[in-house]
Parts: sequence; structure tokens; C-alpha cells
Amino acid sequence: MQGVFVTLEGVDGSGKTTQTALLVRALEEAGREVVRLREPGGTAISEQIRHILLDPMNSEMCDECELLLYEASRAQLVREVIEPALATGKVVVCDRYYDSTYAYQAGGRGLDDDLVRRANVLGSCGRVPDATVVFDIEPRVAWGRAIANGADRLEAAGLSFQEKVRAAYLRLAAEEPARVRVVDADGTIDEVNARLCAALADVLPDLR
Amino acid sequence: MQGVFVTLEGVDGSGKTTQTALLVRALEEAGREVVRLREPGGTAISEQIRHILLDPMNSEMCDECELLLYEASRAQLVREVIEPALATGKVVVCDRYYDSTYAYQAGGRGLDDDLVRRANVLGSCGRVPDATVVFDIEPRVAWGRAIANGADRLEAAGLSFQEKVRAAYLRLAAEEPARVRVVDADGTIDEVNARLCAALADVLPDLR
Repeated sequence: MQGVFVTLEGVDGSGKTTQTALLVRALEEAGREVVRLREPGGTAISEQIRHILLDPMNSEMCDECELLLYEASRAQLVREVIEPALATGKVVVCDRYYDSTYAYQAGGRGLDDDLVRRANVLGSCGRVPDATVVFDIEPRVAWGRAIANGADRLEAAGLSFQEKVRAAYLRLAAEEPARVRVVDADGTIDEVNARLCAALADVLPDLR
Repeated sequence: MQGVFVTLEGVDGSGKTTQTALLVRALEEAGREVVRLREPGGTAISEQIRHILLDPMNSEMCDECELLLYEASRAQLVREVIEPALATGKVVVCDRYYDSTYAYQAGGRGLDDDLVRRANVLGSCGRVPDATVVFDIEPRVAWGRAIANGADRLEAAGLSFQEKVRAAYLRLAAEEPARVRVVDADGTIDEVNARLCAALADVLPDLR
């Protein structure tokens, strides 16, 4: 029995992390074994890579190095955790995956589109999620939430950056409508959760 | 004035490192400014990546992660050191570069050929050496030298591995004869050095 691989995406302040926790709880209550992951990280090696990526001393890191480190961290996560979990029928819920790399590095930072896509193929070892949910929200609204939660480095890039990231997510959804499902993230936690469950009903009927 | 980018390649025990030192000395005596590099490493970030790559505790590292870490380390070296040095007219001499990745990971370990080539394009940021010398030697002869110098992890993979690496290097030389020059590494240090200088005469006339 093959498991189900779901990734959750969205700009900071979209409510993604809250919704991830609710999704995991609902699946566990339905009796599914769930592996919850967050990128970058999730293995001993991936955490070492995460440390290099997030160390403020490494401010001279070039865009290509950053991209390749994210992909290296991802490859280890796929081989060591995601593939074995799926092979034993578990549900893997990953808070960010390669669509984040596309949205932030190609969309937000303007790295070459094709370069990022090729890197994503390498870093994911070709492992495509069964379903990806993009929590979509006006950057102005998300921005207010992010500020309230304490803005970090990425968030500090500001509103126009978030708008570019959002546009990249929506491009992906238009390109791959069967995999990438857009959920309106403007609403109460319960409202958004109901939309999330509906969006995943085909791959996770346990949520019904 | 644009500098010159030379990379030196070969299996362990080919005499590559000895010849690199001689080349650097000859260029400096001829009045050239030389930047000598060794992969992986050469920048603060690249050394952090090298540490992850060489840590024996990380034996669970998957092939894709290893490949991408080599490329991440390389990208930072290209952007932070190699490109600025070339832009100011220096000679950059690099002990191993992306042809090593091809020879060892695609040739030696059997990683997908096209995957490694695409990763090399990403990790090098498209920076191609002006000339690459492959120190070519019968694996049996190189193997004896390597044993004498204390075999390491890669060398421990043995003779048939070295034969595959050698074959991959010779494939590259056949594909890109203008860039990749094969030097017979079976001979005295002086004999091989004379062959090396002759092989680089077009890009480094200072060696005459």
C-alpha cells in the first residue's frame, strides 16, 4: 500500500503552519499514520545544511549556492524519510517543498526560471507530491499577520516581494491544476480548514 | 584583462597534486598572480559544506545529496573567488572541478550521466575552464602510488572503480578535445611536468 504525499504552500502569514497542524491532527484522529515535515530539515544531514542556510554569518552566500543547498537538504529528506514513509503507507505532510523554492527563488528573487525548475527536479529526486495546497491570500492581509507574529528575514523583504511570490504560486497552479490546488486563506481558521479538507478529499478521503 | 582558468584532474595517485604545486610555482616565477584552489572548499561557506561531505558520521548521505552539496560548494567558490580573480587578470589553478564530479559520480559510482551533467552546469554557474588537464595513468600504477601515500575512502573503492573513473575522464577528453587535454602521467616528475607545460602552452605562454 502506497502512502499519500501532501505539501502545503503559501506566503508567510497565510496560516499555512496552523492549517498543517490541524490537518495532521485530523488525519491521526482518522487513524492514519502521519509524518509531518518542515523544509529545510528533517534529517540529521538536512539539519546540518539548514544550519548553514540560516546562519546570519553566511550573508555572502550566492543565490546558486543557496538554491543548491536547499535542494541537497531536500534530496536527503526524500531518500531518507519521505520515500520510506510512503512505501509503508503513511501520509507525509510537508510544510513547504519544491514549489516554495520556485515561488521564492524564481518568483520572489528573480533567479532564472528554468534553472530553478531543473534544480527542483534534481533535489526532489523526481518525487512529485500527490497533492499540493497553496494557501492564497492578499499579500497586504498576510503581511499584517506576519508582522503580528514577528517578521523574519524573508518577510522583511516586504510587500512587493510577497506579491511576486504569490504570483509564482498562482502560475504553478495554472500549469499543474491536477496537483496544485488553491485554497482561499482569507477567513477564520475553521473556514479555511473546511476549504483545505475539501481540496484534499480526493487523495485523503479519511478527512470526510 | 581577463585571467586564465585552469583545472587539473585525474585519479588519486596520478601525481596531480605534485604537478599542481609545480605549475603554480612556475607561473609565479614568471610573474603571474596565481590563485590555487582545491575542491571542495576554498570559501568559508564551501568549507562548511566540505565538513558535512567529509564527516564520517554522515554515512547515510544519499548520492543526490552528495552531488548537490559538491555543486553548492562549487557555486560559492565560483562566485566568491574564481570569477573575481579572473576579472582582475589572475591565473586560477583548481585541483579538481566539475570534471571530477562527472568522472567519480557518473563514471565511478554510476549516477545518471545526464543528471550529473545538469548538476555541473548549475554548480559551476556556467563557468567553463579555459583548459583542463587530465593526468592519465594506468589504474594499476596509480593504485600502487595511492597505497604508498595511505589510501582514503575513495581510493578504498579499489581498482575497478579507478578504471571506471579513468574511462569517464577519457570520454570527456574525446567530447571536448579543445578544452580537455590528456597528459601521460606515467614518468618522472620532471617528465610529466614538461608534458603539462606543453599541454598548457596555448593558454599560458608564460610557461615557456
